[in-house]
Amino acid sequence: VYWGHRATGAEHQDGVLAPAAAVELLHNFALIHDDVMDRSAERRGRPTVHESLASTHAGDGLVGDARWFGVGGAILAGDLTFVWADQLLDGADLPPEAVSRARQVFTELRVEVMAGQYLDLRLAAQPEVSLDEAMRVALLKSGRYTVTRPLLLGAAIGGPNAHLASLLTAYGDAVGVAFQLRDDVLGLFGDPSTTGKGVLDDLREGKRTVLMLHAMQLTDEAGRKVLEELLGNPAVSETDAERVREVVYDCGALAAVERLLAARQGEARRALEPLHGPARNALEELADLAAFRVV
Amino acid sequence: VYWGHRATGAEHQDGVLAPAAAVELLHNFALIHDDVMDRSAERRGRPTVHESLASTHAGDGLVGDARWFGVGGAILAGDLTFVWADQLLDGADLPPEAVSRARQVFTELRVEVMAGQYLDLRLAAQPEVSLDEAMRVALLKSGRYTVTRPLLLGAAIGGPNAHLASLLTAYGDAVGVAFQLRDDVLGLFGDPSTTGKGVLDDLREGKRTVLMLHAMQLTDEAGRKVLEELLGNPAVSETDAERVREVVYDCGALAAVERLLAARQGEARRALEPLHGPARNALEELADLAAFRVV
Repeated sequence: VYWGHRATGAEHQDGVLAPAAAVELLHNFALIHDDVMDRSAERRGRPTVHESLASTHAGDGLVGDARWFGVGGAILAGDLTFVWADQLLDGADLPPEAVSRARQVFTELRVEVMAGQYLDLRLAAQPEVSLDEAMRVALLKSGRYTVTRPLLLGAAIGGPNAHLASLLTAYGDAVGVAFQLRDDVLGLFGDPSTTGKGVLDDLREGKRTVLMLHAMQLTDEAGRKVLEELLGNPAVSETDAERVREVVYDCGALAAVERLLAARQGEARRALEPLHGPARNALEELADLAAFRVV
Repeated sequence: VYWGHRATGAEHQDGVLAPAAAVELLHNFALIHDDVMDRSAERRGRPTVHESLASTHAGDGLVGDARWFGVGGAILAGDLTFVWADQLLDGADLPPEAVSRARQVFTELRVEVMAGQYLDLRLAAQPEVSLDEAMRVALLKSGRYTVTRPLLLGAAIGGPNAHLASLLTAYGDAVGVAFQLRDDVLGLFGDPSTTGKGVLDDLREGKRTVLMLHAMQLTDEAGRKVLEELLGNPAVSETDAERVREVVYDCGALAAVERLLAARQGEARRALEPLHGPARNALEELADLAAFRVV
């Protein structure tokens, strides 16, 4: 949001921080509900909201189904965070027309998040998922919402500018997809102590990520058997995960995804070429960070 | 919303309909999430969103946990409805200052809904609930959100007016609580074919409604035993419900709640006295409807 605003040529403005924080809060809303839907126990190295509320239930001497109390409370905590995001945006110290333009992008962003999340849920339940479908989820669920729309929101605060918007879209979609591909890689090969997420979650959930779909295509009969047996198996152990990592690495799927990642990162840098000034440097750094982060 | 606007003395204005519809959509959001939290199977005589999505899961040949797919999908459907409510409000054909005043009330309303819902969830898990606590939930969860805030939202569209706001608050809080008390009565004594809700849901959930808390206080040893055995028992049958109805009726709890209802309705009418014109008549009718509806 901040660098989208600076990309319009504007100087630093404190008023942009509230809309930026609104997007951050919205992200928290999405994570809280996502963790409920994925039944994840950990986020950022700490218990997820529903897990934490389920513990509160026991500790406070409440009665009934502790787990369901956690689910209900987390749905509401997410809903409240969703409203607070609005409140932050509405209260921004900016001209009313700027807030109104920002709000329009904010709403598009929110509709896309829900569409992307539902598509993700739906694909997770499909017997077969194509690479195209997985890439579309990566674009909608992460690309648009994590990078492109926040940039456009910041740019909209600066003023309407169709040329800048198309440049930021090309950049943001590439960086956003790279971010998601890295997420998939870290979900299998990452270090839980730095990612803060359980490294078995994606496996247990049976996520057909772009990485996993590449592995299915590239591996041999024996490898496919391993993947079919362990993907989506709630009893997956760390030893099982190690077997999956071997298959994914040996067949060249990891290398293929790293190539995709590098290509997206190149696209992102090229998209920035017409841009000058501090926003360009910051956005180049952001692209590197999204594609090559370890957390 | 509509009559809150008219209560300012304003003539009919089409532009008010979009914010009114936004509140209706917000209500739908709250019902969708509420049904998930309460694990209700029916709403308005039809399957709830999560139930309906769970059936879709089976029908579309999807794999995995159908019930959980329904829960995830319903959380997202609620979230999407939440955003659409915003979109309707933002797009209203009204002066920007009017939309901005309306949005402020809309946000207060939404924060109160979440607080009231969480209080409800929390009380449902408490071993003991006092009558005061149950009345507070009725005020926060239904009173404010269903009647008072929508009226204030409509009035805010007309313009700032502290005197009118305090009148509408007195009226709305009384009508809102009456609405909730009637809801509790219908939840036990209503006809599912007209209410569209399962008549055993409240019982199975173990809701300590104002009605139920009165019954606990007023009934004898034997009656209390029946209530303790059946309230919150997921296996409750229609025969069991009939036994609960007998206890609640015989001990005078139903009559006590009907008296509370009539008192609230009187308060609501008195609050309207300074008001003149068509809004007063409409709001009087609304108070009757809330207190004495059968659906």
